[in-house]
Amino acid sequence: MRHLITALVLAAFPVIAMADPLPSWNDGATKAAIIAFVDQTTDPTLDSYVTPDDRIAVFDNDGTLWAEQPVYFQFLFAIDMAKQKAAADPAWAATPVLKAAAAGDIKGVLAGGEAALIEVVSATHSGMTVEDFTAQAGAWIRTAKHPKTGLVYSDMVYQPMLELLSYLRDNQYQTWIVSGGGVDFMRGFSQAVYGIPPQQVIGSLGKAEFQMVDGKPQVMKDAGIAFIDDKGGKPVGIARAIGKRPIFVGGNSDGDLAMLQWSTAGAGPRFGLIVHHTDATREFAYDRDSHIGKLDKALDEAATACWTVGDMAADWSRVFPVEPAR
Amino acid sequence: MRHLITALVLAAFPVIAMADPLPSWNDGATKAAIIAFVDQTTDPTLDSYVTPDDRIAVFDNDGTLWAEQPVYFQFLFAIDMAKQKAAADPAWAATPVLKAAAAGDIKGVLAGGEAALIEVVSATHSGMTVEDFTAQAGAWIRTAKHPKTGLVYSDMVYQPMLELLSYLRDNQYQTWIVSGGGVDFMRGFSQAVYGIPPQQVIGSLGKAEFQMVDGKPQVMKDAGIAFIDDKGGKPVGIARAIGKRPIFVGGNSDGDLAMLQWSTAGAGPRFGLIVHHTDATREFAYDRDSHIGKLDKALDEAATACWTVGDMAADWSRVFPVEPAR
Repeated sequence: MRHLITALVLAAFPVIAMADPLPSWNDGATKAAIIAFVDQTTDPTLDSYVTPDDRIAVFDNDGTLWAEQPVYFQFLFAIDMAKQKAAADPAWAATPVLKAAAAGDIKGVLAGGEAALIEVVSATHSGMTVEDFTAQAGAWIRTAKHPKTGLVYSDMVYQPMLELLSYLRDNQYQTWIVSGGGVDFMRGFSQAVYGIPPQQVIGSLGKAEFQMVDGKPQVMKDAGIAFIDDKGGKPVGIARAIGKRPIFVGGNSDGDLAMLQWSTAGAGPRFGLIVHHTDATREFAYDRDSHIGKLDKALDEAATACWTVGDMAADWSRVFPVEPAR
Repeated sequence: MRHLITALVLAAFPVIAMADPLPSWNDGATKAAIIAFVDQTTDPTLDSYVTPDDRIAVFDNDGTLWAEQPVYFQFLFAIDMAKQKAAADPAWAATPVLKAAAAGDIKGVLAGGEAALIEVVSATHSGMTVEDFTAQAGAWIRTAKHPKTGLVYSDMVYQPMLELLSYLRDNQYQTWIVSGGGVDFMRGFSQAVYGIPPQQVIGSLGKAEFQMVDGKPQVMKDAGIAFIDDKGGKPVGIARAIGKRPIFVGGNSDGDLAMLQWSTAGAGPRFGLIVHHTDATREFAYDRDSHIGKLDKALDEAATACWTVGDMAADWSRVFPVEPAR
């Protein structure tokens, strides 16, 4: 009976977990600020308490949750799909841009600017059901390998950010992705890699149409872009999908500036986090002059807006969940 | 100590609630089918078991969760807003359609067809922040009264459907709205009235833009429509926002046909529910010939598709949470 009472007491007063919730974050101001914010928003005795309904946390994906160099991974996926399509049907590569894509000529495509990029993405991201496309993206993420690290793309995610997502969820935060990347692409891995379900992924949208295909009702992906979830599009995308301003926002580039501004301008406690790529050894170092993930205005504004700038080299004890071969 | 053990046993084996989860549904085939489906999908010992992650239930709003006669309530809201705007600034009603709206001439506006309707909605649903608009919609829903029943619009909801939403949520279903109505309009009442949070509301989208207004970052509603969430738009809207096919779908009109088809064509157990408006005494009776909420093709297809048709007169012991004065 004594054991029973002990068990009962333990059940009523569970041992408070004292384990470090963010083991891959070095002790310092960034980690302390994150933990202080979560404590302040979850302690019901404080004025800064936020009810779980309003604990919305949003994160950019490229450069914030996973790497984005030497070029956005979704573009590398599009190149691989172009190769496959041209191999199956050489007539598919009917334009110079698609020919370059099918030849794996990344620089050639990028020389054509945004129009060429959209052409390749549209041509490789259409003509199939949403479900088939997402399955294709998921298979690629799990098997294709990054040119520099040799890691599969599902391992090119940041271990400290995985821990942050879990820590927030453990504190009844709802975690969302808000990315310039395509929604149907990211849903190929968001649940398995980040623990973020498909309905909490906001991103750019390809056109799509409901059709009967061989007597079966399908949502088919069309060529063309319906919505670009970048810069000013990010707050619009959040307003569309969530309908309230997040209280925790993470980003890494000027593409996240509007989202940081809009979210942290709301009433009550707000946290803005910028992931600063400062680690050329373990990852990549870039900011103001980068073509991918340019961080300039948002870095300037961080000081006056009181956003926390995480320094990848100083704040992270490890970068990827799996150590890349060197 | 005996009491302690009893308490412990009761805590471990809670008394199974035998109360009727759907008290406003009369006993009969419809209610039995709903309960059997929920039992089949939540019993982990059965092949028909569905994990909570995939328990997605979607409902049309107009005519399914609340009434839609004599005309969609959002249009009546737009007319009231037009009156207010014209009263504040007579120059606002600069076109014949807006003049008719400001005069409360509903028939006059409707005579102009869909173009006139969109003109009134665009002109009254723009030029303010998303938050201000949603607050305005919420205030109207709670205070404006329905022309036939005299009830405030927040009481023009169907008690049996409120019970169904709660019953599904009690069984770890995530409940969503998928409506032709405007997202920012419905978010004015979805949480308070249906218990559905803003991020689970899918609907038509007005254009919106991120702007600095008096130095503050805002998402401003523009005139113009970005997305119509009706007919084939409904599966597209679900694919965009949720990224998987719902397993439970409720609708009441041909506007819900594509959503019913697409959702119930998925693998595993699926439930399609059609609310059939058969009760001219307590609500309204209409189907194949109605201008609002026309139910024709979906009613024909219900038999072959094995959707359940709920007969409002026969299946519902009460309609509204509050009894209208007669």
